[in-house]
Amino acid sequence: MQVLEVARDIGATHVCGILYSAFQKYAVPPTEAGIAASVDVLRRIGEEAAKHGITIGLEVVNRYESNVLNTGAQAVDYATRVGLPNVTVHLDTYHMNIEEADIEAAIIQTGPRLGYFHIGESGRGYLGAGNIDFDRVFRGLAKAGYEGPITFESFSSAVVNPQLQGILGIWRNLWEDGADLAKHAKGYIEHGLKSAREAHARSGLVR
Amino acid sequence: MQVLEVARDIGATHVCGILYSAFQKYAVPPTEAGIAASVDVLRRIGEEAAKHGITIGLEVVNRYESNVLNTGAQAVDYATRVGLPNVTVHLDTYHMNIEEADIEAAIIQTGPRLGYFHIGESGRGYLGAGNIDFDRVFRGLAKAGYEGPITFESFSSAVVNPQLQGILGIWRNLWEDGADLAKHAKGYIEHGLKSAREAHARSGLVR
Repeated sequence: MQVLEVARDIGATHVCGILYSAFQKYAVPPTEAGIAASVDVLRRIGEEAAKHGITIGLEVVNRYESNVLNTGAQAVDYATRVGLPNVTVHLDTYHMNIEEADIEAAIIQTGPRLGYFHIGESGRGYLGAGNIDFDRVFRGLAKAGYEGPITFESFSSAVVNPQLQGILGIWRNLWEDGADLAKHAKGYIEHGLKSAREAHARSGLVR
Repeated sequence: MQVLEVARDIGATHVCGILYSAFQKYAVPPTEAGIAASVDVLRRIGEEAAKHGITIGLEVVNRYESNVLNTGAQAVDYATRVGLPNVTVHLDTYHMNIEEADIEAAIIQTGPRLGYFHIGESGRGYLGAGNIDFDRVFRGLAKAGYEGPITFESFSSAVVNPQLQGILGIWRNLWEDGADLAKHAKGYIEHGLKSAREAHARSGLVR
């Protein structure tokens, strides 16, 4: 609950991340009882967050960072069980590249539950310098009508702190100039989103 | 060295895997001294393997399974340091989808060092039911002129043993009928490889 007070005090509108379980590599699958307990805790956190006008984003991550929410479908089910409008699903393309059978479909199916969105490349470096089909990501966001926050996320061994480097497994130096990286990402996302929204708007037009 | 004797006794031609470090999630980057020691050990293993006619495949895996060889380029460098023709690079599309900036280029650049190849989908289930652009994988194999073993690899929580499930993070049931899965993969790979080899053969023709 302390996080919510800090977030409120700094004027934050969203608190996101792996809030529903420990952020670690698990050695066994989750249990039904464990997930039920997690849902109950998130409901209490969500109710408290609502008092401060804060939206909770349940970040869906890959199998090596959690065993609870690895797909959008799992997160929608979980958020439905929590049952609060301010407890939303937070998707991240880096993780979706590993876990989702169809990234575009997963974004569309998360639909109104989507409350936060991370854009990251498959290797966590420059957008486009990897394997993710971002055209389909942007098409998904356009088709879902998503208008919430979109945040670029990237890591390089040159800048990450040792503890985070260890937990995320950031072993290679993918960039050193964070400003250039961020500027490129902003333009890349803006151009891609505009293309996708244009395509989506035109797809339903008769003339 | 015992593994080589077992392999020889059962008539195996290849011994592959994460042979160069422990198979686990590391918390810190590797050291230069550690990698040098690993190279020395692999050279001794490679020399022994050569006596039995066995090829060693250094499997390149993602950041969560090793901190030593995450890319084809790293593995080519490592194999060059070992300096034995029977110590080769083993690539796997599941891991490449996370780590390589350009999967097709990585296969081509591994070139003659490539000694074993794993085909697996991004979520480790049915080929095509994920995010990997297999057309480009097959183009890479055709352009590299690779003629060695190609093995399909897949996991599902319905069939994997608990220890392996834990280390690989197999939390979801992606299939139950292994025979159908394998039959589909065989056809998928054969068709894709034929298309790519045809495209490659025709790309240099004048008429």
